[in-house]
Amino acid sequence: MAGFRIDYQNVLPFVNQEVISGLKDKLFSAQRELEEKRGRGSEFTGWINLPSRTGNEELDKIDGLAAEIRTEAEVLVSIGIGGSYLGAKAVISAFEDKPGVEVLFAGKNISGIEHERLLAYLEDKDFFINVISKSGTTTEPAIAFRLIKELAKKKYGKNFNRRIIATTDSAKGALRRMSEEEGFRTFVIPDDVGGRFSVLTPVGLLPVACAGIDIQSLMAGATEAEQYARSENLEQNPALLYAAIRYLLYRSGKKVELLSSFDPRLFYLVEWWKQLFGESEGKNSSGIFPAGCVFSTDLHSLGQYIQEGERMLFETFMLIEKTSSIAVTREKSDLDGLNYLAGRTLDEINCKAYEGTRKAHFDGGVPNLSLMIPELTTKVFGELLYFFEKAVAVSGYLLEVNPFDQPGVEAYKKNMFRLLEKPGN
Amino acid sequence: MAGFRIDYQNVLPFVNQEVISGLKDKLFSAQRELEEKRGRGSEFTGWINLPSRTGNEELDKIDGLAAEIRTEAEVLVSIGIGGSYLGAKAVISAFEDKPGVEVLFAGKNISGIEHERLLAYLEDKDFFINVISKSGTTTEPAIAFRLIKELAKKKYGKNFNRRIIATTDSAKGALRRMSEEEGFRTFVIPDDVGGRFSVLTPVGLLPVACAGIDIQSLMAGATEAEQYARSENLEQNPALLYAAIRYLLYRSGKKVELLSSFDPRLFYLVEWWKQLFGESEGKNSSGIFPAGCVFSTDLHSLGQYIQEGERMLFETFMLIEKTSSIAVTREKSDLDGLNYLAGRTLDEINCKAYEGTRKAHFDGGVPNLSLMIPELTTKVFGELLYFFEKAVAVSGYLLEVNPFDQPGVEAYKKNMFRLLEKPGN
Repeated sequence: MAGFRIDYQNVLPFVNQEVISGLKDKLFSAQRELEEKRGRGSEFTGWINLPSRTGNEELDKIDGLAAEIRTEAEVLVSIGIGGSYLGAKAVISAFEDKPGVEVLFAGKNISGIEHERLLAYLEDKDFFINVISKSGTTTEPAIAFRLIKELAKKKYGKNFNRRIIATTDSAKGALRRMSEEEGFRTFVIPDDVGGRFSVLTPVGLLPVACAGIDIQSLMAGATEAEQYARSENLEQNPALLYAAIRYLLYRSGKKVELLSSFDPRLFYLVEWWKQLFGESEGKNSSGIFPAGCVFSTDLHSLGQYIQEGERMLFETFMLIEKTSSIAVTREKSDLDGLNYLAGRTLDEINCKAYEGTRKAHFDGGVPNLSLMIPELTTKVFGELLYFFEKAVAVSGYLLEVNPFDQPGVEAYKKNMFRLLEKPGN
Repeated sequence: MAGFRIDYQNVLPFVNQEVISGLKDKLFSAQRELEEKRGRGSEFTGWINLPSRTGNEELDKIDGLAAEIRTEAEVLVSIGIGGSYLGAKAVISAFEDKPGVEVLFAGKNISGIEHERLLAYLEDKDFFINVISKSGTTTEPAIAFRLIKELAKKKYGKNFNRRIIATTDSAKGALRRMSEEEGFRTFVIPDDVGGRFSVLTPVGLLPVACAGIDIQSLMAGATEAEQYARSENLEQNPALLYAAIRYLLYRSGKKVELLSSFDPRLFYLVEWWKQLFGESEGKNSSGIFPAGCVFSTDLHSLGQYIQEGERMLFETFMLIEKTSSIAVTREKSDLDGLNYLAGRTLDEINCKAYEGTRKAHFDGGVPNLSLMIPELTTKVFGELLYFFEKAVAVSGYLLEVNPFDQPGVEAYKKNMFRLLEKPGN
């Protein structure tokens, strides 16, 4: 059973239980197409059984290297863009109190000043580099890697290569060749797993392990999710339930989904989700536009719009029920009027803020569902990652698109290469 | 003349020059209503001449206190939610290399674990508190203030009050009374300036000054913008031009605006903008939904959706043309194929990425306009703040809403108070 539960009461007046049940055949047939690799983009569905097929050997190898890096370095610079960084960033942000090295992410933009500052910061730090790219020629990470590799050479002399780990294709591509020539250690990105589905491969796992986070338990959660995500009982298969609800809401005119957490630690999980869903679904002039919020902060920002703006939104909340025992204290004077809360935990108050919000937005015409998470453990985080991956795959099949390609990402690159007069463009 | 320029070539095939010119009468009449305080919500239009009416005396007083804080503390904890933090955060993030104290923002959510971590972090730091609230009873900042004030009492004994600065109402409210009773120094939030328009009052300016940023030049930029934002020549009044274009795009079915910068330093300017625009326009089941991106990162995340998803988007780009002289180096082997870029600055390449992107998205059916910013100075940042404020005010009048209220923000609070059994609710 899932370590979190879905509450979708506030969806039912918009899309009723019968309509949801009516989608079952379509859902289960999408699920079978996926499992049997008969659907669109099936060559990139290796993520489906990735948790269960990843052996302890692989995880131990990653943990071993991470232990070495934690001993020899203060900083790991992880170089990658899109799916090559968002997954690791999501996990590390959620568990940033762990005792690992500082993990910095580079190669995700072309900002001159950001590179300049990063190089200055690294100047007097001991660092390792984890460069993540299937090809090794994507402009943003390739530029960052050149610049940071040069600094590593300057600092560490001819042994600089010991400090570089390449996560790349098993056989081909510039980064694979470079690794062989320069003697970098390597990890493999499986051929059948696309960037945005790669968090549970070495792409995500190595930076996460370096940050001191328990990747074994992250994988254990994902493995469990892989099991229950095969169920043909909708109530026991949250990924299918979520896919069904959002599909039906979209068909009823709700074109923007807000994934809103009540915990700032989930900020980058939302960013990861935005790529996963936006890039998988945004095709053929259709798809739900993914946007994110952190509450209650953003109730004082986007809150007004959600409550009273265009009625094209629906919301998915994430609430972590237990985070800390910290409570409101009592004050003699009570000038701020908070004594009625004295002794109550912030968790309890945050939970009431969530309840107040879901009701307010529902009353304002915004259907919403909730992922209720008892506590934020690495295990449940692994479940959530798999849950979202499975949901978007089924969702893409419902929308009749290929959820595993991203042809539109090439458009800006082609123009850029032409403008930069790249040879052969 | 503005220190940045608007390029709107990629809007014209969607909304032509004639249509834009045809809106002039409406624009200028909205502008006059604003200036003459005859329009909706005119009691909250004090921000209009705030830059020009703010005397040097006020700025010197803020700078003086900031200098004291920088001498006596390592950290300023700024406590506030929504408009009481986003403006300062936007400015500080843009200029974070400045030699001031570390400014932390608290009181913007009810996360137990975030408060616990913040208190632990402050335990062995010397800090000042700047609590920002018109009333002093807003739940989120009030809770944080209680907890952090208690730590200050523990650390600094009965002189703790010297380390607390309250930015609040001139006469009424709990925080004003508390300041009098406890002896906090205070700054005033003008009655006629709402939260999301308050960045150029002490609400924003004190934290910004503490961070070591030149508030005099920020205000000088805003003062200049105040002047040219009065022009009735559309080409010399970027705020009106921007308001006109986005209004016309909205009327043509473009319901989501993406404010996309090519510089990560502008991330929180976009967050500030989301509140400013979403809260001002999202009323009567209408208004443009504000979303944000940082490129090129998000080209590998939302890029696919922008290129090929629902055609309900338009984009506003922000490009900073000069940021650093750092350039791509040459490598002997050229395995990554980057030597064609050797010697060219990242700024130049980033600019080509921008050009490639605007063309790609335009070709994909997403109209876009651009704010071209030669260099990110505090002066031009002040201009941008005023530019967006003026634009959203005119925009609200075009949409026939009151751009200065936020009735919908109360809904979740009312529910929450009832659930928490707050006396009198």
